[in-house]
Amino acid sequence: MPALAARAERVSPFIVMDVMNQAAAIERNGGSVVHMEVGQPSAPTPASIRTAAGRALEHGRIGYTQALGTDSLRERIARHYRDAYGVGVAAQRIVVTTGSSGGFILAFLACFQPGARVAITAPGYPAYRNILIALGLEPVAIEVGPETRFALTPELIARAHAQAPLAGVLTMSPANPTGVVMAPDAIAAVAAECRRLGLWYISDEIYHGLTYEAPATTALAADPDAIIVNSFSKYYCMTGWRVGWLVVPERLVRTIERLQQNLSISVPYLSQVAGEAAFEATQECEAIKAGYAANRAYLLKALPEIGLGDFLPVDGAFYIYLDIGRYSNDSMAFCRDVLNQAGVAITPGLDFDEARGARTVRMSFAGSLQECEQAVERIGAWLKGR
Amino acid sequence: MPALAARAERVSPFIVMDVMNQAAAIERNGGSVVHMEVGQPSAPTPASIRTAAGRALEHGRIGYTQALGTDSLRERIARHYRDAYGVGVAAQRIVVTTGSSGGFILAFLACFQPGARVAITAPGYPAYRNILIALGLEPVAIEVGPETRFALTPELIARAHAQAPLAGVLTMSPANPTGVVMAPDAIAAVAAECRRLGLWYISDEIYHGLTYEAPATTALAADPDAIIVNSFSKYYCMTGWRVGWLVVPERLVRTIERLQQNLSISVPYLSQVAGEAAFEATQECEAIKAGYAANRAYLLKALPEIGLGDFLPVDGAFYIYLDIGRYSNDSMAFCRDVLNQAGVAITPGLDFDEARGARTVRMSFAGSLQECEQAVERIGAWLKGR
Repeated sequence: MPALAARAERVSPFIVMDVMNQAAAIERNGGSVVHMEVGQPSAPTPASIRTAAGRALEHGRIGYTQALGTDSLRERIARHYRDAYGVGVAAQRIVVTTGSSGGFILAFLACFQPGARVAITAPGYPAYRNILIALGLEPVAIEVGPETRFALTPELIARAHAQAPLAGVLTMSPANPTGVVMAPDAIAAVAAECRRLGLWYISDEIYHGLTYEAPATTALAADPDAIIVNSFSKYYCMTGWRVGWLVVPERLVRTIERLQQNLSISVPYLSQVAGEAAFEATQECEAIKAGYAANRAYLLKALPEIGLGDFLPVDGAFYIYLDIGRYSNDSMAFCRDVLNQAGVAITPGLDFDEARGARTVRMSFAGSLQECEQAVERIGAWLKGR
Repeated sequence: MPALAARAERVSPFIVMDVMNQAAAIERNGGSVVHMEVGQPSAPTPASIRTAAGRALEHGRIGYTQALGTDSLRERIARHYRDAYGVGVAAQRIVVTTGSSGGFILAFLACFQPGARVAITAPGYPAYRNILIALGLEPVAIEVGPETRFALTPELIARAHAQAPLAGVLTMSPANPTGVVMAPDAIAAVAAECRRLGLWYISDEIYHGLTYEAPATTALAADPDAIIVNSFSKYYCMTGWRVGWLVVPERLVRTIERLQQNLSISVPYLSQVAGEAAFEATQECEAIKAGYAANRAYLLKALPEIGLGDFLPVDGAFYIYLDIGRYSNDSMAFCRDVLNQAGVAITPGLDFDEARGARTVRMSFAGSLQECEQAVERIGAWLKGR
């Protein structure tokens, strides 16, 4: 058989998937596991969204749509920018995508030549690195820490660009795995630096809506040429629908339309119908978010009490990124032990930071308060007994 | 603003999309158009499939699934190979994908190094060329004609490989736009030549199920290492669900799993549920296919009678690929005139064959018999009046 492609072999697996598999094995053998590893809401998609999809299921032909998405969904998303941020965006600039994943593929292919260097953060969402590699691009992981609230700054970008020219910069706010939100002036500074250096600026805003102090700012407010990646997955509890969107400068629309025609034809129809209904499900989504807020308040207080206090306060998303360096320099082993001995599934930091993730772990609090309490109780007892 | 990526700019639009837009404009102005341009079934998804999705919609959480697809769908697809072809395939080798589009991206990235040359046919499905270009690969369009029934042969492959080494070969049977089915020995010969030359062999079987004479053979029967691309879109009338599958050699499974984890996370959940139900909807699908068969029988007889007889008999799919060279050497102008003056939308061959498509057009007969009759009547009258 012929050889496999080297770039595909460079794509690393999600370690969290292995944690999930191990947890499932324990449960199959009758063991009990508290799930704090998964990066998705435990709540089902709100009923009103499912009802809208159900109606389309009864009546619709469920065929291809325009490659850029249905007109009505694109218009509804454009309106969302006016309603939620006071930013005017033409519906023409909205591209409906197959999850944010589909959006990254389109944006990366439209903007970057093969071999182009794209700055991302470490720690950060691991698929950034792997999608870039798969598409023949070069991720430049810039290490960030508590001193910049885990965010890129103009100085960090300029320094990386001076080493070897960058083609683009990608930020995420609220961020996975750190839960930090970039302040409006921090985003504006990054956007200005990208503009000064002639770089594409891509802002991943998938956790917008899930903030606990100040609301998150869209990069569009700072720079109308920023490329925005977003999705219905998180705030609207729609991970399994695979629908998201891009906001792109008008000059990119035709190029991205041609890419989408060829790479996807169009986005799942029922998911587009559901996405449109999602904007009217705010009440249900806010109730779910109130649950996350309660989990967060509990964990911010309870984790330090069991000796896990080395983290930044979570501004948004549903993750706590813990430094466990006082207990272990091997987060894989630490997570394995927490799973096997304490019955709590958490994710090793190596998924998010190849160089420094051996002393960090991520806990997701997208489940119930009861699960958070159980997790704290179990890990606390386990840490004491070590 | 920074420049766009050159490879993205090389991706050409689907001309058929422009035809659809022009047809829509005519209809908005009160004109009548018979649609013979669209490459999708006009029938809605069978009711039993929609019912299954509706049940999942009521009860399900609609979250991520395993990257390779749900176990039950993978097992059901594996069983389909036993039932439909008498070929044994382990469920482990099935990869559920976001339409066949998603399957091509995964297969191409797993198998081909940047710059790798991949043989395809001209005429052929235009997205092959464009996906390959977008991913930094080099499509090698091999011209085929009626003399090989529009299919690749070992000789054609060997000749292209001698000019500059190929990395893979992609065939489609039944084919878009020609409707031809490769005989079992033709597929076996291509598979053997690929094996002899050490090339990946990818077989697009998306129109399987839609054949009017002999059933189509899967390339798996000829070579267990062939990569099969398939989808629920055509036979099962599920274009808008965006769900398909790959069958891959076991050695590729982990690589493709990692790619899918990063590029898609997973495939739309409801579409996976629907796909599983589709295999039980054979009765409804066969009734729809009987409609295509009636359309085909009518067109094979009626088109020659109005002076459009220069095509191969359609073995499968729902397309007729007509040589219109005796009327025009400009298929774009010909299709524009047929649309504007006769009120029938058909697709210029340039979508499928950049070099020779100026004298061909594609007609799709996935609609009703009445539409086929109207199309023949209108085009016949128009040809007479020219």
